[in-house]
Amino acid sequence: MTATPLPIALDALAGDVGAAPNVEGAIQAARAGVSVTLVGDRTKLHAALASHDITGLPITVEDAPDLIGMDEHASDVRGRKDASINVATRLVKEGRAAAAVSLGHSGATMASALLTLGRLPGVDRPAILTHIPTARGFGAMLDVGANADVKAAYLVQWARLATTYLRVVEDRQSPTVGLLSIGEEDHKGNALVLEAHPLLRAATDLNFHGNIEGRDVMQGTTDIVVTDGFTGNIVLKLAEGEAKVLFGWIREALTSTMQAKLGALLVRGALRGIADRLDPSTYGASILLGVRGLAFIGHGSGDARAVKNALLRAHRAHQAQLLQRLDAELRAAPST
Amino acid sequence: MTATPLPIALDALAGDVGAAPNVEGAIQAARAGVSVTLVGDRTKLHAALASHDITGLPITVEDAPDLIGMDEHASDVRGRKDASINVATRLVKEGRAAAAVSLGHSGATMASALLTLGRLPGVDRPAILTHIPTARGFGAMLDVGANADVKAAYLVQWARLATTYLRVVEDRQSPTVGLLSIGEEDHKGNALVLEAHPLLRAATDLNFHGNIEGRDVMQGTTDIVVTDGFTGNIVLKLAEGEAKVLFGWIREALTSTMQAKLGALLVRGALRGIADRLDPSTYGASILLGVRGLAFIGHGSGDARAVKNALLRAHRAHQAQLLQRLDAELRAAPST
Repeated sequence: MTATPLPIALDALAGDVGAAPNVEGAIQAARAGVSVTLVGDRTKLHAALASHDITGLPITVEDAPDLIGMDEHASDVRGRKDASINVATRLVKEGRAAAAVSLGHSGATMASALLTLGRLPGVDRPAILTHIPTARGFGAMLDVGANADVKAAYLVQWARLATTYLRVVEDRQSPTVGLLSIGEEDHKGNALVLEAHPLLRAATDLNFHGNIEGRDVMQGTTDIVVTDGFTGNIVLKLAEGEAKVLFGWIREALTSTMQAKLGALLVRGALRGIADRLDPSTYGASILLGVRGLAFIGHGSGDARAVKNALLRAHRAHQAQLLQRLDAELRAAPST
Repeated sequence: MTATPLPIALDALAGDVGAAPNVEGAIQAARAGVSVTLVGDRTKLHAALASHDITGLPITVEDAPDLIGMDEHASDVRGRKDASINVATRLVKEGRAAAAVSLGHSGATMASALLTLGRLPGVDRPAILTHIPTARGFGAMLDVGANADVKAAYLVQWARLATTYLRVVEDRQSPTVGLLSIGEEDHKGNALVLEAHPLLRAATDLNFHGNIEGRDVMQGTTDIVVTDGFTGNIVLKLAEGEAKVLFGWIREALTSTMQAKLGALLVRGALRGIADRLDPSTYGASILLGVRGLAFIGHGSGDARAVKNALLRAHRAHQAQLLQRLDAELRAAPST
């Protein structure tokens, strides 16, 4: 991989922990050939960089004295032009960055991206697409929180965005689309699903599988799971929460007796692969699809590995010309 | 435990497997002192019983020549008075059975219970309450599938039903209620949640905790999780599906190398407790709350242990006079 001339803008003081994981992740990504612009209070960023040797690495700093706190309102992005997330999305808008990545306030990141970058043609509302580990590798689910109340047509637009995303960035040529519901039969679901089903069925550019159920999400029955942002957010957080609870139980069980402790020493290596597979850091960040620019939203608790993987993913999306491809596919799509 | 004079009516040929798990589960429950009436085609039931010695056990047979198949419509219960589920709910209605239990068509079971038994006062729609394993033991979630589209007032009624259920049957005196949403803050959620939140807050007879997120479900943050039947059904099936996928991965990992295999022998016992905790059979069946009678709906794939536990739970609910308590609490409740 050679260094791209256009850097990824990282909202580098955002997130639960602040500078450390951002700076470390940026350095790891830069070592892998990705240019990074750290956006944030200049003094703080230089202080955070001081303990690292970044000689020769493609890392720069862009000053942004303001930061939207995790407890502030997403709508605060409107008036605060010096807020780091606004500076980051503006760099994308102005063609000075390939993508914006933030582990900060996800509502603010969405709002900033939407206000600064605008929407792609044929998209009513942008959606957040996340990767979920499945029995078949990983799947893509959207929306996972940008839109709590949605219209049926949005689901078709999102299926379209996700299809192109997987095609371009993950090299899946004809990804299948599942509509999350409470029964596989066409006539089962809530009012939204019942309305969306025939629209998805009619969209000839999509590989629509039909309705899927909660159990299909981690089975990986389809490449893509489309759902409203309320259900998707709950599914995502439940899946992460359950993995955490189960691994807590396993850890407890493996230290419960001398025999189990001994066995644990032998199986630890084998089990670590599963924990890795379930770790959200593996996927780095979720992408906000539907805005006219690349924007990625990470977990506030993400570590350096999450930041690095988010930057690599953003870089890959840019290299693959995701935005241009999305734009082209949307323009060519049959109207819904 | 002494035998109750009033038996539990079991829809004994229903479910994916048919007679075997039902008859075996009934025998196990009868040995524990629970009277059971097996409802179904008399000839088939006597054939299934032939290989067992039930001398002295409180098991009887009630003939019901018809059975609603898993692929038929729930509405079919209307015209088919000899269908086993209709015979079972009629036994409850006529005071000849304490409760009806079925592992069959869940939509048909709901429809039959609602049509035959009617609703309790102050209940617009019955809901299915299920038990979910959590880090703190187990929790109760409703609705998990009876109502895909709901009104805010239903959620308050369901919180009330679940509160009394846990108080009476599980001896939790002041169970906490969480409203499933996409953020803990009062102002986060979809339109339904935003409307339900203040109603729940205003219900002085409830111990309302506030909004909870997907991750709280298995953490057991609250005793009760209230949500619409669409979200609840997806959450339930996702939780079961994820456990299955993760245990599949663990099984694979523990047989991946000689070292892991050796370790697996030592940790197997310790891990089995976790699998048990996650096994839906442990909880037996879900209860349909809001109808004027006790009705339980089990997994179609339930085994004899699931049937036994469903019968024991139904027996306990009857002994504790759940129905009378629900009726009294609903009459005393402040209007919503």
